[in-house]
Amino acid sequence: MQRALSVTRDRFADWYQAVVRDADMAETSPVRGAMVIKPWGYGVWEQVQGELDRRIKATGHENCYFPLFIPLSFIAKEAEHVEGFAKEMAVVTHHRLKNIDGKLQPDPAARLEEPLVVRPTSETIIGDAFSRWVKSHRDLPLLINQWANVVRWEMRPRLFLRTTEFLWQEGHTAHANEAEARAETMQCLEMYRAFAEEVLAMPVVAGEKPENERFPGAVGTWSIEAMMQDGKALQAGTSHFLGTHFAEAQNIRFQDDAGGMAFCHTTSWGVSTRLIGGVIMTHGDDDGLRLPPAIAPRQIVVVPMLRDKPEDAEVLKYCEVLVEALNKLSVFGQPLRALLDTKKIKSAEKRWNWVRRGAPLIVEVGPRDASGGNVTVMRRDDLRDGDKIKSFVKARVDFLEGAAQLLEEIQAGLYAEAKARLDSNIKRGITDWAGVENYFAGGDDEFKGWLRVAWSRPSGAELEAVDAKLKALKLTIRNAPMDQPASFAPCLFTGKPGAEEILIGRAY
Amino acid sequence: MQRALSVTRDRFADWYQAVVRDADMAETSPVRGAMVIKPWGYGVWEQVQGELDRRIKATGHENCYFPLFIPLSFIAKEAEHVEGFAKEMAVVTHHRLKNIDGKLQPDPAARLEEPLVVRPTSETIIGDAFSRWVKSHRDLPLLINQWANVVRWEMRPRLFLRTTEFLWQEGHTAHANEAEARAETMQCLEMYRAFAEEVLAMPVVAGEKPENERFPGAVGTWSIEAMMQDGKALQAGTSHFLGTHFAEAQNIRFQDDAGGMAFCHTTSWGVSTRLIGGVIMTHGDDDGLRLPPAIAPRQIVVVPMLRDKPEDAEVLKYCEVLVEALNKLSVFGQPLRALLDTKKIKSAEKRWNWVRRGAPLIVEVGPRDASGGNVTVMRRDDLRDGDKIKSFVKARVDFLEGAAQLLEEIQAGLYAEAKARLDSNIKRGITDWAGVENYFAGGDDEFKGWLRVAWSRPSGAELEAVDAKLKALKLTIRNAPMDQPASFAPCLFTGKPGAEEILIGRAY
Repeated sequence: MQRALSVTRDRFADWYQAVVRDADMAETSPVRGAMVIKPWGYGVWEQVQGELDRRIKATGHENCYFPLFIPLSFIAKEAEHVEGFAKEMAVVTHHRLKNIDGKLQPDPAARLEEPLVVRPTSETIIGDAFSRWVKSHRDLPLLINQWANVVRWEMRPRLFLRTTEFLWQEGHTAHANEAEARAETMQCLEMYRAFAEEVLAMPVVAGEKPENERFPGAVGTWSIEAMMQDGKALQAGTSHFLGTHFAEAQNIRFQDDAGGMAFCHTTSWGVSTRLIGGVIMTHGDDDGLRLPPAIAPRQIVVVPMLRDKPEDAEVLKYCEVLVEALNKLSVFGQPLRALLDTKKIKSAEKRWNWVRRGAPLIVEVGPRDASGGNVTVMRRDDLRDGDKIKSFVKARVDFLEGAAQLLEEIQAGLYAEAKARLDSNIKRGITDWAGVENYFAGGDDEFKGWLRVAWSRPSGAELEAVDAKLKALKLTIRNAPMDQPASFAPCLFTGKPGAEEILIGRAY
Repeated sequence: MQRALSVTRDRFADWYQAVVRDADMAETSPVRGAMVIKPWGYGVWEQVQGELDRRIKATGHENCYFPLFIPLSFIAKEAEHVEGFAKEMAVVTHHRLKNIDGKLQPDPAARLEEPLVVRPTSETIIGDAFSRWVKSHRDLPLLINQWANVVRWEMRPRLFLRTTEFLWQEGHTAHANEAEARAETMQCLEMYRAFAEEVLAMPVVAGEKPENERFPGAVGTWSIEAMMQDGKALQAGTSHFLGTHFAEAQNIRFQDDAGGMAFCHTTSWGVSTRLIGGVIMTHGDDDGLRLPPAIAPRQIVVVPMLRDKPEDAEVLKYCEVLVEALNKLSVFGQPLRALLDTKKIKSAEKRWNWVRRGAPLIVEVGPRDASGGNVTVMRRDDLRDGDKIKSFVKARVDFLEGAAQLLEEIQAGLYAEAKARLDSNIKRGITDWAGVENYFAGGDDEFKGWLRVAWSRPSGAELEAVDAKLKALKLTIRNAPMDQPASFAPCLFTGKPGAEEILIGRAY
């Protein structure tokens, strides 16, 4: 069978690389670990940004921009934060280059007194601003977000999933008390869950991370976890309750009603270009990417079947009118995005390009379609009938009338497919370690899924022992899902009474 | 007279700082030369981005994202480029911090083999991608844009105008021949001119920069120049024709129709957060900022006049319905942006906040307005009648019906005012150096404006002499405007036959 990709999903890691490359999403750059995001990949990011930004603003947050560089002394202020990030930061030490002995190099005379760190995250530099902005309880809550690039040095980079530089949004908020800050943390977690499921069509499990997986400096970290088609988990977003740790380190205080000074409770939360990796591994198939229509840069691509003949003009005109009409429609609360592909390459090549890129609907128009007032439609989510490519002919007027609904159907279908996979691959009922070993036995490439087991929520050294045991099988605790039963089996690790259920799996 | 600002425009530099601060646009940060862009300032940037991005895409360009870091060897490839930028770059030399003797510092074991430069502009790293992407003439033109942060070390930073880090867009294109690349350069210059005038209401003069003011590595640089209220010029955007300089340095070649290999002709063009400084200095008055409605994050702000009395509920409800109705309207081809200010501070304080921030229309609603079905409106562009604040009462329905048109009127009025200032302060007819000295005599704070004079377009050493002469009076050549007469006076500097007319002025 002819496939649009040269690799199938049974070699999942290679397949992922092939999709990223052949769908024109991104490529490696000469800077180790940093990627070039190509137009189609960046177009997906623009859709992610647009829709998430609307949701962030709808919940009262305002966008700002803070400096890329953070003074070394800021990073040093919060002890756990240093511990967590110091190992992977890009450090700026000079502010000028000089030609010395015919070779361009950092100018020794332009050495910075205090080195600057390229932000790996912005709690410290934003906290510094908060300490100036917050004076009284009337300034609270302070609800800020920024869209920015961040840098965390990566020794084993993978495009979108783990890159030295990535794009993200980071929300930072300050509150008058713990209850409000915790409510904010949960509100943002829920925003991410809804966004992942409604917009990315990527089902997730929201829950709390165990103590050893917390953000450095946080009191509590929550995540959304998605299941990829190889059964591995992808942490797709996190929301942190920071207590007063950062407020104390940076003196973020306010005068309360009684006139006394109190430290703020702060939060932070973020999602990144990693989401695009998640979309690829959730929805891609052996022909390439399948994009949920809500984030497809182009939801409908119209390919005119031209043959260098006089009737080409009529076909083109027909296509132009069609695309214009499509672009006047609305879907998912936004204008529909259709494209007329007029590139000077063969129509068949165009078809395969858009299949690989995952355009939700590909519409081919030949002379017969044009004269008959029809279109020939391919659904990317339902591409094949056995070995053959499926297409259906529809009257132009009917297609136009039903286009928005069809896109919504595709969106819902992709979600349902992924949701079924997630739900049917979370195994419950295993109560001892032998059961865990047994479940995860076999080759690395074998599809596994996750376990949902009870534990006693151990801490400190006891937790470290659990972590080590799991790591030996390349496993981690993903999170403790928000929906918990009323009672628990005994802890699989310690035998003590169960305190909550957690998800265990392999992860990206 | 009570003013919303403590400084007036006769102390222009101090006034600028006061507006940036009191209109909540931006503030300095602990990182020398880098600014924090606050919500209102960032909101303006979002409007600039949104509208310019639509125009960039409408002319066929696609957005991408390229790495923040550039290998040192890339910068070294284009000789003039090195010369122009090497002096002001942030250099990353290490990728890890370490606690040594109780002090966090760059880890000597994590020293980079090749230092990385934080991008001051991306010709070299994007050119590297172009060299992979362009293979045949069918890949051309390649039309790319990116929205990004860039870093150029600044010794004398000024918020928005000259900051070590700033936000911008940079367009980069590759073409099969010189004519197409030159046409692209001019198309983008015209896009910037139209954007500045139509959206920022900031009249500009588009023209070519003299040889000594070209972008490092360019064959030709064009700019748009705006006149600030102190008479100084602000270079507000540039468009560069790069010839084959960068293509040769980076091997951007294509197979032409005849099968031979040819170097591409490339262009680049950009505008930055500097535009916001231009908007402030073009439209601000002694009460603060006046924002053109097209880029005001909130075009209409509704302030309920609450008095902690039972009728407050009715006033609030009335305001909510009003704002909801306003937000359903369209203006400048986008949804109208209205805000209900429910902050818990006094109404008078709110009024002055919005005056300082430059919201185009401020609507106050008291119990009498609410019960009478009216609104009380202040126009920020026409705020005072002598010492008093002007307002007018309007029926709610009439205000709603006319709101979009009123905003368009304000936009046009701000443009007309600035355009009159620009046109009446470009002095022509001076033909000798004494005339120049005379025109620019007097204190630095005195309003000057620009001269439009003829010159012979000297080059090399002859141009350097002209440049030195001008610099002694703190003057520079801004550009040679696109509209040139058919014949010229003799060159003011060399006495040779005139070749074109140029603008001379003081500049930011």
